[in-house]
Amino acid sequence: MDKLVVIGGGAAGMSASSRARKLKPDMEITVFEATKMVSHAPCGIPYFVEGLFNDENLFMTYTPQFFEEKRKINVKINTKVTEVDLDSRIVYAESKDGKIKAEYDYLVISTGSLPKKLSVEDGNDRIFYAHHPANAVELREKLWSLNNIAIIGGGILGVEMAEALTHLGKKVILIHRGKYLLNRTLDQELGNIITQRIMKDAEVRLDERVETIKNGGRLIITDRGKYEVDGTIVAVGVTPNVELVKDKIKLGETGAIKVDEHMRTNYREVYSAGDNTESIHIVTGKPYWVPFAPVANKMGYVAGSNIGGHEMKFPGVVNTQITKYKEFYIGRVGLQEDEAKRYGFKPIAATISGKTRARYYPDAKDIHIKIIADENSKKILGGQIVGGEEVLGRIDMLAAAIMKGFIIEDTFFIEMGYLPAISRVWDPVIVAIRQLMKDE
Amino acid sequence: MDKLVVIGGGAAGMSASSRARKLKPDMEITVFEATKMVSHAPCGIPYFVEGLFNDENLFMTYTPQFFEEKRKINVKINTKVTEVDLDSRIVYAESKDGKIKAEYDYLVISTGSLPKKLSVEDGNDRIFYAHHPANAVELREKLWSLNNIAIIGGGILGVEMAEALTHLGKKVILIHRGKYLLNRTLDQELGNIITQRIMKDAEVRLDERVETIKNGGRLIITDRGKYEVDGTIVAVGVTPNVELVKDKIKLGETGAIKVDEHMRTNYREVYSAGDNTESIHIVTGKPYWVPFAPVANKMGYVAGSNIGGHEMKFPGVVNTQITKYKEFYIGRVGLQEDEAKRYGFKPIAATISGKTRARYYPDAKDIHIKIIADENSKKILGGQIVGGEEVLGRIDMLAAAIMKGFIIEDTFFIEMGYLPAISRVWDPVIVAIRQLMKDE
Repeated sequence: MDKLVVIGGGAAGMSASSRARKLKPDMEITVFEATKMVSHAPCGIPYFVEGLFNDENLFMTYTPQFFEEKRKINVKINTKVTEVDLDSRIVYAESKDGKIKAEYDYLVISTGSLPKKLSVEDGNDRIFYAHHPANAVELREKLWSLNNIAIIGGGILGVEMAEALTHLGKKVILIHRGKYLLNRTLDQELGNIITQRIMKDAEVRLDERVETIKNGGRLIITDRGKYEVDGTIVAVGVTPNVELVKDKIKLGETGAIKVDEHMRTNYREVYSAGDNTESIHIVTGKPYWVPFAPVANKMGYVAGSNIGGHEMKFPGVVNTQITKYKEFYIGRVGLQEDEAKRYGFKPIAATISGKTRARYYPDAKDIHIKIIADENSKKILGGQIVGGEEVLGRIDMLAAAIMKGFIIEDTFFIEMGYLPAISRVWDPVIVAIRQLMKDE
Repeated sequence: MDKLVVIGGGAAGMSASSRARKLKPDMEITVFEATKMVSHAPCGIPYFVEGLFNDENLFMTYTPQFFEEKRKINVKINTKVTEVDLDSRIVYAESKDGKIKAEYDYLVISTGSLPKKLSVEDGNDRIFYAHHPANAVELREKLWSLNNIAIIGGGILGVEMAEALTHLGKKVILIHRGKYLLNRTLDQELGNIITQRIMKDAEVRLDERVETIKNGGRLIITDRGKYEVDGTIVAVGVTPNVELVKDKIKLGETGAIKVDEHMRTNYREVYSAGDNTESIHIVTGKPYWVPFAPVANKMGYVAGSNIGGHEMKFPGVVNTQITKYKEFYIGRVGLQEDEAKRYGFKPIAATISGKTRARYYPDAKDIHIKIIADENSKKILGGQIVGGEEVLGRIDMLAAAIMKGFIIEDTFFIEMGYLPAISRVWDPVIVAIRQLMKDE
């Protein structure tokens, strides 16, 4: 009987094990998870902090018991893998009950990502990383007891934490290295809109670099000033968690584990999936790294399919991102304009502002759209949207278009729906596209 | 100097003339419009009746003055074209100021559609067609004065009028020939959901055929009963308005004007665009007819481009439809399951019900999705969604997928955005698609 061992019970690990179970009812499947949670959702942390829900079990799509009982998967929570012997196909793990040695025929590495750290002096009792749901209850308790809170990093997590904390009435200072917030998500035209919006609620410090954090998180020293606060959230990004295997397995140029289309590492029976795994960007054909749950889930599904004997290939990523801040939804897909240049494209772009509803329908929201295409091939390279409603679906549509190499004119002709209550007869996306056509 | 004459100043006609003007600044362009409105939006009528806006000028994207002044287009409103001499290239028209004779080098026929009528006896002072915005003020005044109103026809317009009138507190009886409402939009699984919802607000009579309407609209006789009401709205569909040219120009099998990819009729200098024009269904490659404004606009844009000397081809349609009823948005694209069978496909389908937000995020809405694919080619043939939010964009995404022949697996891998506040980590569309994959 084949044995599958999965290291890490997050999105990718549980997808892989569930899919393998479906295809191979007799396989012995064991998942080692270092925390108390499996199939957990870090994306929910800001909303838990905001107080939108209170039951930490809701962080889990399914409980360990569900996987044990319904899917016959051995789930070892609070169990940390300490070593992997890839040549002998053995995983060593440890829990409070002692050491475990597990042999495998197939291995899935799905260890996720780790938050990047900053230089810290004099303790860290007031330094927080909103990274893992297993610590969310403690995180929330502490944050709720503080008044002046610094967030370092104005990416998606930083902005989401700013939304949560300002909603709670906290005084927030947001310190960001970039010239505007969300600069890894949006180009400046659209990024400025969000930056200015957040400035209404929080003190935003741009183009500023943190040198060190002192007094356990109560003092922040940057290249331009000092800030005294009650505590500090560090949200300066994540990095693939490859600690366990980095000397044993081939990593890619992004620092994540290199895999082929089947999600196989350089060991034929060892798969990697999720935030610890490198992918290929569909637009560039080059290595890329996207640490988001939908990608992790699909990587896991592909790994599990192949382990289960049903061949499947992961096509790569287009870096779809979506977040929100108060009344604004914020989405992007594909390459930003600078990225496009860096990869050797000759980007042309159209940025338009419009409304989300027919001119006569009440309560229309603003929507701002940037579309980037390649002047030579006419292919759509990227899209960015900031708006009050129906941002997600437009981004999803552009994701489909970009993944299959739609040119500008293909995109113009997508027969988008029109309902006065929720769209425009010339959809704002089509208006932007039409502008690119006129440039021809 | 080239002369362009456009018959009909709706979406298609004004798109065609605007685009031609852009490309040929010196062209002499004349638009004949039988009513007082141009670039008008019939889709707004139910919302005007509901009282969501009061200024009838909002039905127009731009006024005749705008086109005259900003785009140098001669707009002749309240002017009816009475005859077209295609061999001599002359259009004859009439207004209260007298007769007009206009020669052309290019002609665009964009006469739109007409509402289908029913057998009527004894006058029609209480029979209404919610078809043209030019009559919306009068329509609304009359409807507001009535209490018991029948709507005949449970398609999109009938449902939208039911939403408006029940919202106003009117007693509505909705009489429909089909087994469930919106049966030309949705398959029965999803159609039932909407039908049951509307039954809470209105008396819904299904599978019932109107034989005649009497007493000016106060008495309806069907094959199963008689209904006394204060007035009757007839919403049994529309038909291409080809009266003017039906004996002179080639019509297609749908009854609309046949055109090539350039929107040209069998006369090289005569184009046709909008609701009076036949298209090709991209999925089947067969003639099809879609009387919706976004298609009309793009047809007009293509006609205007070609007249302006910039070659462009219209790729065909996938019949995207979107409407709403109270808290439900309702969308479809591509073929329904029955249609797919009729066209010789071997449809497989997955229907799922899910939620629109992460399980921990408050106020999630229900969403119901049906995806139809072809068992042989694995191509996506159609999609239908009924749900409380973010229906439009998912339909738009499926429209893109269907237009470019995505197979099931391509669609599974679309990197859809995930934000707990507005989607699920396994998007409901992907859940439906995944179910189709498991059937393989």
